[in-house]
Amino acid sequence: MDMITLEHGNGGRKTHELIKDIFYKHFKNDILSQQSDASILGMIDGEVAVTTDSFVVDPIFFPGGDIGKLSICGTVNDLVVTGAKPLYITVGFIIEEGLDIDILEKIVISMAETARQANVKIVAGDTKVVGRGSVDKIFINTTGIGVMDRNELQISNRNIETGDKVIVSGTIGDHGMCIMSKRAEFDFECDIKSDCNLLDKLVADILDVSNKVRIIRDPTRGGVATTLNELIENTGKSVVIYEKNIPVKYSVRGMCKMVGLDPLYVANEGKIILIASIEDAEQIVEVMKQNKLGKDATIIGEIISDAKNRVCLKTESGGTRILNMLEGELLPRIC
Amino acid sequence: MDMITLEHGNGGRKTHELIKDIFYKHFKNDILSQQSDASILGMIDGEVAVTTDSFVVDPIFFPGGDIGKLSICGTVNDLVVTGAKPLYITVGFIIEEGLDIDILEKIVISMAETARQANVKIVAGDTKVVGRGSVDKIFINTTGIGVMDRNELQISNRNIETGDKVIVSGTIGDHGMCIMSKRAEFDFECDIKSDCNLLDKLVADILDVSNKVRIIRDPTRGGVATTLNELIENTGKSVVIYEKNIPVKYSVRGMCKMVGLDPLYVANEGKIILIASIEDAEQIVEVMKQNKLGKDATIIGEIISDAKNRVCLKTESGGTRILNMLEGELLPRIC
Repeated sequence: MDMITLEHGNGGRKTHELIKDIFYKHFKNDILSQQSDASILGMIDGEVAVTTDSFVVDPIFFPGGDIGKLSICGTVNDLVVTGAKPLYITVGFIIEEGLDIDILEKIVISMAETARQANVKIVAGDTKVVGRGSVDKIFINTTGIGVMDRNELQISNRNIETGDKVIVSGTIGDHGMCIMSKRAEFDFECDIKSDCNLLDKLVADILDVSNKVRIIRDPTRGGVATTLNELIENTGKSVVIYEKNIPVKYSVRGMCKMVGLDPLYVANEGKIILIASIEDAEQIVEVMKQNKLGKDATIIGEIISDAKNRVCLKTESGGTRILNMLEGELLPRIC
Repeated sequence: MDMITLEHGNGGRKTHELIKDIFYKHFKNDILSQQSDASILGMIDGEVAVTTDSFVVDPIFFPGGDIGKLSICGTVNDLVVTGAKPLYITVGFIIEEGLDIDILEKIVISMAETARQANVKIVAGDTKVVGRGSVDKIFINTTGIGVMDRNELQISNRNIETGDKVIVSGTIGDHGMCIMSKRAEFDFECDIKSDCNLLDKLVADILDVSNKVRIIRDPTRGGVATTLNELIENTGKSVVIYEKNIPVKYSVRGMCKMVGLDPLYVANEGKIILIASIEDAEQIVEVMKQNKLGKDATIIGEIISDAKNRVCLKTESGGTRILNMLEGELLPRIC
């Protein structure tokens, strides 16, 4: 099996071969084939949105996905939850000398397939190779460019009102616990699969039926609890969520208990959390349930008029607990 | 001195503090302060151009620059040589646990200053922290978005004609040999400084006086020889350059000899190479010389009608040598 060498990153002949044989081959499109220092995308008709993310997940292949799929999903999802239609993605690879080229190609194929599903073009790229031990296998940066194509849309936590409902699209903590179980190499059977997925169609379905969605987020690092803290910040309101309503898979709940983690702080990579008006909430949940990725959608709480910008959890035992942002390190390199 | 911990990358409270205390503080602008999953840039009036680059340079501080300055210059330069006006930059940091926060802040300040000089806004960011040994200190991805604001401009190697002149903006090999000398830790005095610089004004000056610039590039990895090979590819023409005309600093030439390298293959980070019509070439050189970064600008060769897409070097001793793309590894992690 051929391996990546430092020569693949020197900008010379081997770099050009790698670009042609792997990147252009799978990412092929008219813009990328300009082969210029910068790619010309043409006009973008509307307000432009941009997001960037680096992916350092370990292991690079996991049940439900791999670093390539994750890198495209993560960036597409950041655009769609902001209300943008994803158009273009740039890709920066940092590769450790010695990586099998077959593994790189597998990752690239996964990225290309995911980009096709999301109808985005990979329009520019960069490849650096560093010596053994200077990076762990492969890190990927993806930067996404989209267009705000819904003129009427006003997604902002400034619009949050008391009584608004908090909706989650499905079971939480799947991605983080999947990565943890793979890293821990438990000697018992563990079938937790990452929820790594494109959320473009789910979000579009929601925005098609409601113009009273206040804000949408994908609760990745820091989990639902941290994301809710971000959403409620500076609103002069608070959130209450009900433990009994929060969907958590049996296996995820079990593993969380075993390692002493709260699924509310565990990362998701294919879930959304959103706040919507009380009138629209039920209808939004119904629409979400018709989408495979939203089949477990449910209302988990509501906005209350407590001015302290807090996230409160009503526990199953009837108590109340304040959920702060994640403190301490849960598990590094989950995304 | 405080250090980066894994907690700074978990998406929780420490991540938010780092973002506020270091990134927002120095990169401050109205778009970045949206603090959303994707940043909304507004309309872009014209064709949009995009480029991405990861920076893994070792050492992270070197004479003439640092990884932060380099990351902004590199991305701005890739936009300007394509004829775009740089507008926005996104930044992705991958940081090794244990990095001094003071060092991170020094890098961030350097990025902020360089971005201000280039009149670009840093509009989105991402921070990942990985365990000790999973990355070497800090890697940075920058993705740049620009607008093609010169409607008449036609930069393409398809326009290259026989007789066109090849111009270089100054001495070559400075950046690569600076990095090599720092890494080698020679025990003699070595004063080679990187040419790391913003090329936006130099390129604008050139495009203001000539509409017969065929193509511009910044000869980074692979050096002038590799870049010329890229430029001439598929044109059905060839380039001849004259060794006696190629500006190389005395110290760079000496060190290249000592380590057995050809300065034509050594990376530059503040130079351009361009091909222009024979009529405009002298005037372009004159304009370049008025810019500090172009004071050593000179014509180094011309386009000939040899259909083999080759780069030929006329040596000082009167011979001819074909310059292929860089083969073999010169020096990893130069940018």
